[in-house]
Amino acid sequence: MPRRSERLHLGAFLYPGGHHVAAWRHPSSQADAGVNPAHYRQLARTAEAAHFDLIFLADGVSIRGDDIEALSRTAIRYVGQFEPLTLLAHLAAVTERIGLVATASTTYNEPFHVARKFASLDHLSGGRAGWNLVTSADPREAWNFSRESHLAHAKRYARAEEFVDVVRGLWDSYADDAFLRDRASGRFFDPDRLHLLAHEGEHFSVRGPLNVPRPPQGHPVVVQAGSSEAGKALAARTAEVIFTAQATLEDAVAFYGDVKGRLERLGRDPASLKIMPGAFPVIGRTEAEAQDKFGALQELIHPVVGRSLLEQLTGADLSGYPDEAPLPDLPETDGGKRRQDLFVGLSRREGLSIRETYLRAATARGHWTLVGTPERIADALQERFEAYGADGFNIMPPTLPGGLDDFVTLVIPELQRRGLFRTGYAGTTLRDHLGLERPEHRRHALLRNAAE
Amino acid sequence: MPRRSERLHLGAFLYPGGHHVAAWRHPSSQADAGVNPAHYRQLARTAEAAHFDLIFLADGVSIRGDDIEALSRTAIRYVGQFEPLTLLAHLAAVTERIGLVATASTTYNEPFHVARKFASLDHLSGGRAGWNLVTSADPREAWNFSRESHLAHAKRYARAEEFVDVVRGLWDSYADDAFLRDRASGRFFDPDRLHLLAHEGEHFSVRGPLNVPRPPQGHPVVVQAGSSEAGKALAARTAEVIFTAQATLEDAVAFYGDVKGRLERLGRDPASLKIMPGAFPVIGRTEAEAQDKFGALQELIHPVVGRSLLEQLTGADLSGYPDEAPLPDLPETDGGKRRQDLFVGLSRREGLSIRETYLRAATARGHWTLVGTPERIADALQERFEAYGADGFNIMPPTLPGGLDDFVTLVIPELQRRGLFRTGYAGTTLRDHLGLERPEHRRHALLRNAAE
Repeated sequence: MPRRSERLHLGAFLYPGGHHVAAWRHPSSQADAGVNPAHYRQLARTAEAAHFDLIFLADGVSIRGDDIEALSRTAIRYVGQFEPLTLLAHLAAVTERIGLVATASTTYNEPFHVARKFASLDHLSGGRAGWNLVTSADPREAWNFSRESHLAHAKRYARAEEFVDVVRGLWDSYADDAFLRDRASGRFFDPDRLHLLAHEGEHFSVRGPLNVPRPPQGHPVVVQAGSSEAGKALAARTAEVIFTAQATLEDAVAFYGDVKGRLERLGRDPASLKIMPGAFPVIGRTEAEAQDKFGALQELIHPVVGRSLLEQLTGADLSGYPDEAPLPDLPETDGGKRRQDLFVGLSRREGLSIRETYLRAATARGHWTLVGTPERIADALQERFEAYGADGFNIMPPTLPGGLDDFVTLVIPELQRRGLFRTGYAGTTLRDHLGLERPEHRRHALLRNAAE
Repeated sequence: MPRRSERLHLGAFLYPGGHHVAAWRHPSSQADAGVNPAHYRQLARTAEAAHFDLIFLADGVSIRGDDIEALSRTAIRYVGQFEPLTLLAHLAAVTERIGLVATASTTYNEPFHVARKFASLDHLSGGRAGWNLVTSADPREAWNFSRESHLAHAKRYARAEEFVDVVRGLWDSYADDAFLRDRASGRFFDPDRLHLLAHEGEHFSVRGPLNVPRPPQGHPVVVQAGSSEAGKALAARTAEVIFTAQATLEDAVAFYGDVKGRLERLGRDPASLKIMPGAFPVIGRTEAEAQDKFGALQELIHPVVGRSLLEQLTGADLSGYPDEAPLPDLPETDGGKRRQDLFVGLSRREGLSIRETYLRAATARGHWTLVGTPERIADALQERFEAYGADGFNIMPPTLPGGLDDFVTLVIPELQRRGLFRTGYAGTTLRDHLGLERPEHRRHALLRNAAE
């Protein structure tokens, strides 16, 4: 089995009001979370006090859907919330140790902007930035950026791979020790330590240099969320953390073995990539209390919202099929392939109706749902960790702040008692927390030579 | 004469280490300012304690130049510093009242990203965001964004005008009262208050809606910095603040009258646009002390840096001309027209050599330089304000933090004694400070109708 750290890595995945699709209606959530900075400052401080490795923010550059009846009843389909990089830069001011990971798409961004913003966040936070690289599949995103349609799956991934290569190259524009700031001689930086990227590729031509000193971490940590074949291939070549959705132990172990095996075949140390599946914990002091909490949330799901979420996650049109019918066969989709397979598989395996399927989807959009006591939840996390199904978990609280408070006060102490989670931060950067090496500086050509 | 507020508006224009080209070498500056968050937090608190209207940050998406000998001796040609929006989101967490204005170019950005980030900053700061709209003229910026050359002057401005129109339209995606967050009924927002932009223009096709609630200010304040003919025309149609460079009283009064006259002809209230020229104050308790301070800074200018700055500002190649020669005739330039005219005019008018011209440029890149006692500087600001040459000033401290501390402790109390500057904030938003009206919501089509 591949070597890896002795303890779990934990992310606090913050979502407006919480991850349950009806969370905003529950009293333990903040209904105006999406644009409430005090709420996020509180969450960040809670997560840091509990020594989470990182805060994680998703992103979307459009509202997810046109079904206005369903959209107007949800808080979590990017209907109205902070842009994640500005939010994390804000939270960097009220935290000192916790990692700050934001999602940014490679499909409708420019590598120079992305490299610059994450480098800036890394400097603002003293080395705590991470970039969750995704590709954009929703055509509504294309329509916000003067494109008629989104890129096909393969092309999105080819662009993403070149994109991350350019971003990393830009982060190496300056050597770590380039800035001399020598007042006496008047030399601000050493001209022999400023490098030109001069990238000429299929999708991008980027000269550089990036106009930000090399980030404290060398490179902000690169995270990836795609679990399709193309996503796994890209992650094995380029990612340092994978955020993935694995609903069962078997799936998780298979995915973990698959990805770590790819790393070995590519000559990468399997420990240089951490696999952190999502986990959606509904926690009660007793089993009954946990089931009651879960039931109360499920009852808040409006049928329109449940069906619409399932349609969004699978790319299927379910109109014409009643709630009690089985999930029909779905057409091939070009975006979110993995998520469609996941729900069709679940529905077929357990013989679920459309309603039963959307109630499952509503918990955590296909992520692992755990309902129980702190001990049982710790058991399940431990089992999956020890079976080589995960290096840690991205915790998706059903409601926020309530669900994060529950996890912090009830589950974390149990994990700490078992020696599975840290009781303090040993280092100061996100790389320190995750046990990831600081990348060496890659020399490009010198700007001096280009200018002469 | 047009009506306007009785008091000055003041911006604190923060630049790495200060605005003097050699500031970083001076003991009253922070040499590593560009990526030092504690330094910026201190400056923001200082400016807020003095009741400045706003903090102002410039921006550039490339290093400004290839002359490595000069670049490596400067801190202010975007060689290495924070990206301004992430920095302002950070500073929003340590301030409560002061406005936060960042520059973002319309040439290499997408309106959706810009609208979203400034809306997010406005929510994060409780209504304190402003966007300084610029166009990009440096070809090095094009090369960082997969373009071979920058856009011609006229085309840049046509794109900018459509860009700001799209951004404003996106800010109106939701009505102010769209978000009901009614837990009992399950209605998160009112579907009849979500609007689709559906913009189809020459440069952009942007469907919308923006996935952020309408900003607290309705729209973040739109600032413009261009002073060319195209820049003035665009500002008269779209801007709420102009940041401009006017070195003499005559130029300032002429510019002020020109722009306010354009507003009247367009049917806009002249008070709906504030003109805030830059001012670079070198302050001493005596005239001699002020001159000594100025002299000490000027002596720190390396000739390579001075010549290179002048070349950058004018677009001219001065190689082959000795320092003591007069400024030669310069070729037509496509970027920064106004700045070229300004330096050629100055040089011809006063019969300056190349060296004498670059020493002038080095103080504040063509902005108004004031060297003297607090009383004399207050006199000069008052004169220009009362002569209808300005609604206020964007203060460009020669060094930071030292030059800002000087202005705050010496000049602001003098302005307050004269009743020319506030002694406390009356409102909470940037619009409140500037006396700008909150824009009404413009209805577009409803998303509901598009979806049906």
